Amino acid sequence: MINYPIKRKTQEKTTNYANLGMTLESDIEASNAYYLSHEIAVIHKKPTPIQVVNVSYPARNKAKITEAYYKTPSTTDFNGIFDGLYIDFDAKETNSKTSMPLKNVHPHQIDHLRGVFKQGGIAFLIVHFKPYNQYFLLPVSILLNYWDLQDHEEKGRKSIPYQTFVDQAFLIPFGYQPRLDYLKIVKANLNSLLNIRHSTK
Amino acid sequence: MINYPIKRKTQEKTTNYANLGMTLESDIEASNAYYLSHEIAVIHKKPTPIQVVNVSYPARNKAKITEAYYKTPSTTDFNGIFDGLYIDFDAKETNSKTSMPLKNVHPHQIDHLRGVFKQGGIAFLIVHFKPYNQYFLLPVSILLNYWDLQDHEEKGRKSIPYQTFVDQAFLIPFGYQPRLDYLKIVKANLNSLLNIRHSTK
Repeated sequence: MINYPIKRKTQEKTTNYANLGMTLESDIEASNAYYLSHEIAVIHKKPTPIQVVNVSYPARNKAKITEAYYKTPSTTDFNGIFDGLYIDFDAKETNSKTSMPLKNVHPHQIDHLRGVFKQGGIAFLIVHFKPYNQYFLLPVSILLNYWDLQDHEEKGRKSIPYQTFVDQAFLIPFGYQPRLDYLKIVKANLNSLLNIRHSTK
Repeated sequence: MINYPIKRKTQEKTTNYANLGMTLESDIEASNAYYLSHEIAVIHKKPTPIQVVNVSYPARNKAKITEAYYKTPSTTDFNGIFDGLYIDFDAKETNSKTSMPLKNVHPHQIDHLRGVFKQGGIAFLIVHFKPYNQYFLLPVSILLNYWDLQDHEEKGRKSIPYQTFVDQAFLIPFGYQPRLDYLKIVKANLNSLLNIRHSTK
């Protein structure tokens, strides 16, 4: 086995921009970095919650965690502020050509998005349909419609059809800077995204 | 050495409500839980960011982190939404009777709070002066005044005087439910907390 770590690192750096669309999360984080540096918005990914069990101190002022476990997040991954608007969303990917399974969304994420919507925030999912390489901004109101049907009806759908995305969600164009300009979509569709109680006051 | 872990756990649970005011962070988290359950606001503490280096899989579906390190947070600890308003803050404690040292606040937290303020969010610190057992809500505008003087003047103060808190910040009463009703203070002082550019549009 041959190792040439320096060359590999260089390659990673130079091919960075060629690998656009590598992962949905990194595309969103790159977009957020663009928004932040251009003072368009302040939106961050929350750290992954980790339960720390044991910590050792091999050197002074340097805590080393030696036993820890991933915890289930109680909220969504992304939130922040855009021109006075509270923004809150999660990112989902699916390999399906026909629908996004609702099991991709955790019940606590639904509760959280519902609460944000009630408080007058902009809540949504960014959904990547990998077979089409399409990115949709799905307003929480549509998500909740499907979720609540699933909960209350025996025969409720367990997924949101791709055609619903085409008809009712908003396509996010993939670009260079920012890669996923989802805030442009938010701005252009505020009436569809805001809770009526809040948008009319 | 004697260990009786079961008894200890029980004790912790039953004395939970007697230990009001034990730590600032837990008081804020208890207040946030109250706001959430009463549908007043959706505000959470962000998880502590941790850099995971090694993970082992002793059992299927159970990842055990065996080496990890604490990272410096790039934002504040708390954010969320309250009646359409984006809320963002950090909590600080001081044993000083005369001032809050500015070294308690990290430069990246200042950058973050400044960015939030520019976007029309409500940004502040909750500062606990332990010798007086007083809790203040310090608007970011006052914090930035002191911070920027410190940056640009050789003789700029390295702290914010206690008297400034008394005169210009807002005292948060300590109660039972919620323990620290900081949103009541936010609501009553919106004009002092909002960026003028945003509050007048």
